[in-house]
Amino acid sequence: MTEHVLPTHTNSLGGVFGGQIMAWMDLCAAICAQRHSGAVVVTAGIDDLTFERTVRAGQIVRLTARMTAAFRSSMEIFVNVEGEDAVAGEVWPCVSAFVTFVAVDAAMRPVAVRPLVLSTDEERVAEIAAHERRASRLAKRKK
Amino acid sequence: MTEHVLPTHTNSLGGVFGGQIMAWMDLCAAICAQRHSGAVVVTAGIDDLTFERTVRAGQIVRLTARMTAAFRSSMEIFVNVEGEDAVAGEVWPCVSAFVTFVAVDAAMRPVAVRPLVLSTDEERVAEIAAHERRASRLAKRKK
Amino acid sequence: MTEHVLPTHTNSLGGVFGGQIMAWMDLCAAICAQRHSGAVVVTAGIDDLTFERTVRAGQIVRLTARMTAAFRSSMEIFVNVEGEDAVAGEVWPCVSAFVTFVAVDAAMRPVAVRPLVLSTDEERVAEIAAHERRASRLAKRKK
Amino acid sequence: MTEHVLPTHTNSLGGVFGGQIMAWMDLCAAICAQRHSGAVVVTAGIDDLTFERTVRAGQIVRLTARMTAAFRSSMEIFVNVEGEDAVAGEVWPCVSAFVTFVAVDAAMRPVAVRPLVLSTDEERVAEIAAHERRASRLAKRKK
Amino acid sequence: MTEHVLPTHTNSLGGVFGGQIMAWMDLCAAICAQRHSGAVVVTAGIDDLTFERTVRAGQIVRLTARMTAAFRSSMEIFVNVEGEDAVAGEVWPCVSAFVTFVAVDAAMRPVAVRPLVLSTDEERVAEIAAHERRASRLAKRKK
Amino acid sequence: MTEHVLPTHTNSLGGVFGGQIMAWMDLCAAICAQRHSGAVVVTAGIDDLTFERTVRAGQIVRLTARMTAAFRSSMEIFVNVEGEDAVAGEVWPCVSAFVTFVAVDAAMRPVAVRPLVLSTDEERVAEIAAHERRASRLAKRKK
Repeated sequence: MTEHVLPTHTNSLGGVFGGQIMAWMDLCAAICAQRHSGAVVVTAGIDDLTFERTVRAGQIVRLTARMTAAFRSSMEIFVNVEGEDAVAGEVWPCVSAFVTFVAVDAAMRPVAVRPLVLSTDEERVAEIAAHERRASRLAKRKK
Repeated sequence: MTEHVLPTHTNSLGGVFGGQIMAWMDLCAAICAQRHSGAVVVTAGIDDLTFERTVRAGQIVRLTARMTAAFRSSMEIFVNVEGEDAVAGEVWPCVSAFVTFVAVDAAMRPVAVRPLVLSTDEERVAEIAAHERRASRLAKRKK
Repeated sequence: MTEHVLPTHTNSLGGVFGGQIMAWMDLCAAICAQRHSGAVVVTAGIDDLTFERTVRAGQIVRLTARMTAAFRSSMEIFVNVEGEDAVAGEVWPCVSAFVTFVAVDAAMRPVAVRPLVLSTDEERVAEIAAHERRASRLAKRKK
Repeated sequence: MTEHVLPTHTNSLGGVFGGQIMAWMDLCAAICAQRHSGAVVVTAGIDDLTFERTVRAGQIVRLTARMTAAFRSSMEIFVNVEGEDAVAGEVWPCVSAFVTFVAVDAAMRPVAVRPLVLSTDEERVAEIAAHERRASRLAKRKK
Repeated sequence: MTEHVLPTHTNSLGGVFGGQIMAWMDLCAAICAQRHSGAVVVTAGIDDLTFERTVRAGQIVRLTARMTAAFRSSMEIFVNVEGEDAVAGEVWPCVSAFVTFVAVDAAMRPVAVRPLVLSTDEERVAEIAAHERRASRLAKRKK
Repeated sequence: MTEHVLPTHTNSLGGVFGGQIMAWMDLCAAICAQRHSGAVVVTAGIDDLTFERTVRAGQIVRLTARMTAAFRSSMEIFVNVEGEDAVAGEVWPCVSAFVTFVAVDAAMRPVAVRPLVLSTDEERVAEIAAHERRASRLAKRKK
């Protein structure tokens, strides 16, 4: 997903609002979760995130989403955001986060999602880490 | 901050996008940080958050922000979001999170912010917890 | 209701459009009328208003609404708008007006609204003035 | 000025928000004032208005603006709004109002505007009425 | 149709995006096609177009649409776009194009449209040219 | 570029406006031209296009842009648009077109762009076709 930063998206210093980037991250990750589940998805939560360098009006925000794990009816998606100055030919890391979605039916009830097919060791390692993050999220919420 | 949920803010099931709520949280917290610091502020990060119950078109999103700690040039703000159905007279918790901002000058360099005046024990406890969260964020980022 | 003024809301001199402020006034007052009536409300009209001082991009528009009278199925709401510069720590009056709403059902037919409970003398005086404004509106419309 | 009513402009019953119509009225009248004065204009105020019949998503809002009087640096513009259902071939009155603008320079100081050339008796009568409205506005504001 | 160019519509040099103008052309022509057919219309295509001079924030985009031919269920509309600087009192050609629409029913099936009544020689010549353009479009699409 | 179709983008039958798709095509192609030229670009024109099948709210619009030729200071970009239903797992062609951009400096004067490096026969054939289209555009405009 590629977004042109317009004046509307920016604060008075010309940098894009953090909240706008989070909105794009949610949308980009949702498409990924929807493609995997073949269902409508709702955002369950997002892990903590830290902004590294902003993106300004006239520059470009590039978002890529990758599914890291499918649980029963929820999915964890990793979203990476980069800034790009197409005129200067420069690209930089902006922010990244794990977003969790639940697949639902028309009555908003969770529906099962098919398992994630893992073909490389990298993907298997990523999935184990995803399960650990999920366990720590559940533990945290209990408190 | 009070936002009317319009069709634009919602997905095909009529619930507001998680990303839209995060964008409003950022805006609401930014006003709070701006008022304390008397400076322009940029979003440094947001802690993990979990959506409890959605808000639908025609309903209202209510956001309240409260500053929990002022560090050197950064501030931690707690944002709480509730859904409200004004017709049914119902209010419910939607999501909450800690958002961190940095006060900056026109050249985007961090500027010092005045300390937070704490008048109640509750505020003192909240500030201690904020310092702990900050330490854990810094530790996490180092890894 | 609190609105951050973005470049989109402003004319070429950087001041927010009068029409944008009127749109926010309508939205803010509608929430107030919806809460009282527990019904969907439609704008019946707005009294004359005069802009005192504008609000600029990067500043904040603060709106407060207070119900002044409930008639059979219509309600009069007073909306006050202030500008705020959070960086300079300054607040100023911008504009105020009385907006009238009608509570309607799903077929757009007017529905009765419960009376306004008046607990202070100030509220009682405000209600009498509201009835006078209403009489003068009805007289004017007949002409 | 012609506006297509989109779902974004409407409340949960599908009718366009009163505030949205007021925002369009301001924009439409501003173009008229800008053309006459050859200056940037800011909204000084709007007279009371009453909505007659709403316009719905998929229908069209038609706005026409006509200048009724030029004072020293301010101008009074009459804006008339009609709803149109292009599919049904129907047109109906929606709302109308007098909007007042002040012509300003880059420092937001009022600048003189050229007088309105009146060629018909109808225009002369309209101008006299405009002067009366102005006197009553000034009297009202003094109170 | 008259559109005020706002900062949102413009690129970093302050000129309105070509795509924004095309979006307005489509909307303006659609109203014209809807009025003629009394039906909902969908854009079938647009002929090639060339931008002559841009329009900037604070200036005005004026669009006029004129129907050139009605075929069985499709219509060809000519849209002309001009830029206007109301402050400088200047108007210039911006772009023009032929847009084709199909009238459809609620199931998105084409419906017949009434013929275009031609009253002047100019209109008759315009209609002949429209038929030629249509033949060349159909020939092109076959390839 | 990937766009989620929201209710705002659609007409009363739920299909996205043709003009909205053209606006996205322009934006997507502009990023491609900006990357090649390292300059700000303005839309010079777009070739005729025909919509094949619409995209609806809740579905996704996928845009891909590919540069076909670089002239002195202008560039021709081919944009292809597909609809995608992520829930149903379906993809279909929507529309495609050639868009031409001019690279400009801060004073809006055309600047030279570097030649397009062609590495495959397919690219060479595409470039020859682009030169032919350009010649026919220039011939057409002379008339």
